Amino acid sequence: MNEDTSIKEKINVDINVSLVLNKFKNALSKLERVVGSRSTLPILNNILIKVHKGGVELLATDLEVGIKFNLGGKVEKEGSITIPGRTLINLVDNLYGDTIQLSSKNNILTLISGDSKANINGMPADEFPVIPEVEVGKKVTLDTQVFKSMLSQVEFSASSEESRPILTGVYTISSSGSLTLVATDSYRLSETVIKNGLGEEFNVVIPVKTLQEVRRMADEDASFELVVGENQVMFVFKDAKLVSRIIEGDYPNYKQIIPSKSSTIAELDVQEFIDNLKTAHIFSVEGSHSVKLNVKPEGLVEITSESSQLGNFSAKLKAEVKGEGGEISFNARYLLDGLNSFETPRCTLGIESRSNPGVLKPSNVEGRVYIVMPLKQ
Amino acid sequence: MNEDTSIKEKINVDINVSLVLNKFKNALSKLERVVGSRSTLPILNNILIKVHKGGVELLATDLEVGIKFNLGGKVEKEGSITIPGRTLINLVDNLYGDTIQLSSKNNILTLISGDSKANINGMPADEFPVIPEVEVGKKVTLDTQVFKSMLSQVEFSASSEESRPILTGVYTISSSGSLTLVATDSYRLSETVIKNGLGEEFNVVIPVKTLQEVRRMADEDASFELVVGENQVMFVFKDAKLVSRIIEGDYPNYKQIIPSKSSTIAELDVQEFIDNLKTAHIFSVEGSHSVKLNVKPEGLVEITSESSQLGNFSAKLKAEVKGEGGEISFNARYLLDGLNSFETPRCTLGIESRSNPGVLKPSNVEGRVYIVMPLKQ
Repeated sequence: MNEDTSIKEKINVDINVSLVLNKFKNALSKLERVVGSRSTLPILNNILIKVHKGGVELLATDLEVGIKFNLGGKVEKEGSITIPGRTLINLVDNLYGDTIQLSSKNNILTLISGDSKANINGMPADEFPVIPEVEVGKKVTLDTQVFKSMLSQVEFSASSEESRPILTGVYTISSSGSLTLVATDSYRLSETVIKNGLGEEFNVVIPVKTLQEVRRMADEDASFELVVGENQVMFVFKDAKLVSRIIEGDYPNYKQIIPSKSSTIAELDVQEFIDNLKTAHIFSVEGSHSVKLNVKPEGLVEITSESSQLGNFSAKLKAEVKGEGGEISFNARYLLDGLNSFETPRCTLGIESRSNPGVLKPSNVEGRVYIVMPLKQ
Repeated sequence: MNEDTSIKEKINVDINVSLVLNKFKNALSKLERVVGSRSTLPILNNILIKVHKGGVELLATDLEVGIKFNLGGKVEKEGSITIPGRTLINLVDNLYGDTIQLSSKNNILTLISGDSKANINGMPADEFPVIPEVEVGKKVTLDTQVFKSMLSQVEFSASSEESRPILTGVYTISSSGSLTLVATDSYRLSETVIKNGLGEEFNVVIPVKTLQEVRRMADEDASFELVVGENQVMFVFKDAKLVSRIIEGDYPNYKQIIPSKSSTIAELDVQEFIDNLKTAHIFSVEGSHSVKLNVKPEGLVEITSESSQLGNFSAKLKAEVKGEGGEISFNARYLLDGLNSFETPRCTLGIESRSNPGVLKPSNVEGRVYIVMPLKQ
């Protein structure tokens, strides 16, 4: 034990640990969105710092999502303290240097980095809520890039209205050899399926917000594990765990609204479709966002929109059309959301009648479907 | 006259002109911020399109700033129409193709580009306000890059409060061989001077908003001309003119508040100063934004800040100090605004006493000074 350490022990600090500053910054940045800023329960505005033999645990929770981060460090005194999260994050973000020393005394955290020193007023750790881990559950390993891609293909279709909570989640189905994500707000629906032989069987509705946190957390790992328990799910990363509530209830039987066939199918250039829908949307933006599509068997799709106040728009897009054609109206924003999630140069639009849902698919891709309910003309 | 033209003339269009689409897009983007979106005078939400022998003039005004754009085009029928600006800009922004044809009939503008066609409801041109040009005035030619740089060095110091209108402008002085820009909100002041032998003598207070539009307009020209008239200024670009009101009144005698000397001068690293001020600001953000600087003759500047609620911060910065040193408090935001406008690695801070303004200058640069009033401790 060197002299420096013995001095610190003499003044009886509560915690004392040195960390690599960049790792500390990175961990705090991952906690940022879970830490409250004006929560009615003030302790939820705090981050819990737990110093144990092996290093430091950083915890934050908004009671829906809890995140635990594990960092290695040079530990001189074990203990814990909670600190207002925003202040800590803003402070550490502006520090530089290689290491940072954290010590505390009488619920004041002292941070020393280079020639800078800050004292932050904290609170005792015992008020901080417990973040229970999922001990027993069904497991699946997810590739980070594949997960991110699948999430971006469905998340925008989830509902943001709390009136039907089940629709604010992403329905996640792990079955023999495949993983499926589904989201719908009852006006449109996204489904994406990939082959995945590595998981146990389960289905669960996970809040979109949780999955968006998972995307941020997963940044540095090539893969991570999802553990589905009775009432919670847990995502296990190399240095961190994220625990979230599950949305209770039965997900709608969505398979029955996906049309089994379309009597007319048009294949179009995705970017051209997007550009012209955006333009058409200018003239429908004040009303129902309605644009009319007229699929013509001679090989074009006509897009039209009209506003009594502003004026009107029409464009003819070249298309490969199979079937007898037909006319149907959609909410332009919903079509654009779906098309913007496609990564292919071309897509197909399947229609059956004016009152049946339209079916958008990226061309030459398996496992993707986007369903849009039609508007009355 | 080809057949196509004769048909159009038969149906008696009001205007008819073809333009290069990208030039039209570019001109509209420059008008975007002057066009109102919900002006109480609805005609100010419109863009005036004037087709004359030589091409097309596009005009927009918010009554403070007026912009005229000149575009070449293939003119088939002269005339004019005004069109809701937002609708026109949004529409044209989403079009593609090489050219666009504009024609009008009964105050409806028809735009045809590629396979797209839009009709926008317009209004007769005669309600549109006249944008009077400055015919007689003092002139100076400005280099675009130099002007942009000078503007960014002073604009943030102008006041945003209308209670003293004169301080919402930039004081612009052209004298024998130099051009000076000054802005102050009475809490801090920026002055920047360059040698410029090309202009006539004048001084004028130009609204900051006008100069910010000028920055956007100047993008494509290497230089432009400023003409200062009786009640207006005019900026002359290659394809456009911008006319603005002048702010009436006498600019404060600012020279008298710039300290002639500082008994203590510290030279510091700009980025290190910025980083530590940002950190110190975390602990003062809820109060007066006050940070204390203690300049020590042994060669350092200590920055401290304190919040009874959050905690406190201190940092020691290496500095080259001349003089006996001293302690002074400033609003951290004002220091940061000044330092962020410096492009040099180092700067000097001059102080006289706790109650005299501080003087910040970028090191080894002529003609720049930033003055900050101190706070009571």
